[in-house]
Amino acid sequence: MDNQELINFFRQAALEVDLAMQADLASIESGLLGEVLFHGIFNGGKRIRPQLTLICAELTDGARRPDRQRILDLAIVFEYLHAASLFHDDVIDHADQRRGKPTANAIWGVSPVILAGDYLLSRAMTKAGAVGGAEAMALVGRATEAMVEAEFLQARTAAENNTSEENYFKVAAGKTGALIAAACEAGVYLGGGSPEQRAAIRLYGENIGLAFQIIDDLLDYQGDPARTGKAVGNDLGEGKMTLPLLHAMRRAGLEDRATLEEVLAADGDGKTARFAEVMDLIGKYDGFVYARGRANELIAAGLAGLSCFRAGRELQILKGLAGYVLRRDK
Amino acid sequence: MDNQELINFFRQAALEVDLAMQADLASIESGLLGEVLFHGIFNGGKRIRPQLTLICAELTDGARRPDRQRILDLAIVFEYLHAASLFHDDVIDHADQRRGKPTANAIWGVSPVILAGDYLLSRAMTKAGAVGGAEAMALVGRATEAMVEAEFLQARTAAENNTSEENYFKVAAGKTGALIAAACEAGVYLGGGSPEQRAAIRLYGENIGLAFQIIDDLLDYQGDPARTGKAVGNDLGEGKMTLPLLHAMRRAGLEDRATLEEVLAADGDGKTARFAEVMDLIGKYDGFVYARGRANELIAAGLAGLSCFRAGRELQILKGLAGYVLRRDK
Repeated sequence: MDNQELINFFRQAALEVDLAMQADLASIESGLLGEVLFHGIFNGGKRIRPQLTLICAELTDGARRPDRQRILDLAIVFEYLHAASLFHDDVIDHADQRRGKPTANAIWGVSPVILAGDYLLSRAMTKAGAVGGAEAMALVGRATEAMVEAEFLQARTAAENNTSEENYFKVAAGKTGALIAAACEAGVYLGGGSPEQRAAIRLYGENIGLAFQIIDDLLDYQGDPARTGKAVGNDLGEGKMTLPLLHAMRRAGLEDRATLEEVLAADGDGKTARFAEVMDLIGKYDGFVYARGRANELIAAGLAGLSCFRAGRELQILKGLAGYVLRRDK
Repeated sequence: MDNQELINFFRQAALEVDLAMQADLASIESGLLGEVLFHGIFNGGKRIRPQLTLICAELTDGARRPDRQRILDLAIVFEYLHAASLFHDDVIDHADQRRGKPTANAIWGVSPVILAGDYLLSRAMTKAGAVGGAEAMALVGRATEAMVEAEFLQARTAAENNTSEENYFKVAAGKTGALIAAACEAGVYLGGGSPEQRAAIRLYGENIGLAFQIIDDLLDYQGDPARTGKAVGNDLGEGKMTLPLLHAMRRAGLEDRATLEEVLAADGDGKTARFAEVMDLIGKYDGFVYARGRANELIAAGLAGLSCFRAGRELQILKGLAGYVLRRDK
């Protein structure tokens, strides 16, 4: 499966997901609630989570596989959860812009956006229960709780200047990995997969999420703004301890470490002003090489487990997606 | 069953609910998340919703009734949902105080409180699914969605100066009635009740919620601050169109109606300054009598349906609670 085939596949699946969400949300009574939800959900997102559910539901032999509509109904749960978390994140961060457009809270204020997030969270969980029963509910519940716990862990480690790599991975696993893993596992569950297959796809999903996050970290230093559509150095400016920097901090000699700490202690503009210097130090201590190596390892480990599924088009797509996560430059 | 017996019963049940919640929340990893949740949940609330689940689970003959722990596990779901909505309400309203204590957002800021609400909402729904299956999930999901839709309806009717009684009841049914009705129905469901019994207890729960709201409206005009612990006139000051006022507006002659509209068009202090005048006009048009009459009717209709349950202690408690809702002066 070449790159274009992969892109075509995902484009088609995204369309199917969008149509399912539009039909599902038609029952909302309040006009404003509907507007807020549509603004947040139909924002050019790639629908990666529901697409994974759709693919993973087809991975198994599927004698017990339900019809396409039921799979779609469970798939959109994961887009709803993602959108709910973005609504609340944007309120918490006072964010005005997302993907170059005004956020819902910038347009309508905090109140309807908090409520819209609650509505989506509730609707997602109800839907998961209705379509996939208590088992799907438990999957979704664990992922949502992990996302919240990760936010608290992130806030605490930031407050404590905790720079352990273990914490970095714990936060990334909760914030990004947990929901992707749940989306994958939900598909295999619907498709009637074995416990071994469910464990394998969880690992794939979690590692895809972690690798995605690491590549995000790299692009924030090394990306081409003309490709990514955003300036480099945001993470440093915000004092975010991402993997390349964490590695450099750990490996640096006393003097270089002191320099990095001095930069991190400066205010936002002060940090940004010394971006090139930090880039050089990360490079000197192989922070970028190390981070990319970790992403490669994670993807390799995630893919290795997939041997418990039959070979076929869906497995090709999962491998293609893993390759895309590593290769992406935007 | 006299008043003291009723109070003793509820005190005992509240203790049981509190212990169940404490045990359940012990698994939380983040220290701050735990602190925020405990502050919001263990705040002197009466636990009315979970108590209703406990009572209603015992209403039926109960050949299929699960053990007490499982009933408790479903009961606390309704306290979690209530607490989640209070967390988010207080953020939305920028509230500093609740029950005479600082709110969680006053202590820890907006971010952990939004997340704590999300956590509770998710945990409640997961628990409902795990204990009561897809049926309990659907109950909880409908109630949560109704609560959000009601918030939007309330905001819209306020913006449009819509003063219809129909809207008043729709908002109250969504904001207060839906969750109480779901707590009651969940109990009867666990107890193995028939569809007829489930419909009857829903009506009871919804009407208890509506009557509770109406009595709240009355106390905000006629209450004794020494008993209620809060000043009268808050609703008027905030421009809230509660039932006594709505009725007076509808019945008032041209001149009196113009006076009421003039008061409502004033700013908060301007409204509060004319509280006595508004009291008189509501009295003149029997707004208080009318509202109390509606509360009585709702309770009577709610109780009438309960004849499909066997006579016994639980039915006595439900009747006692209904009487308390009407009689309460704080």
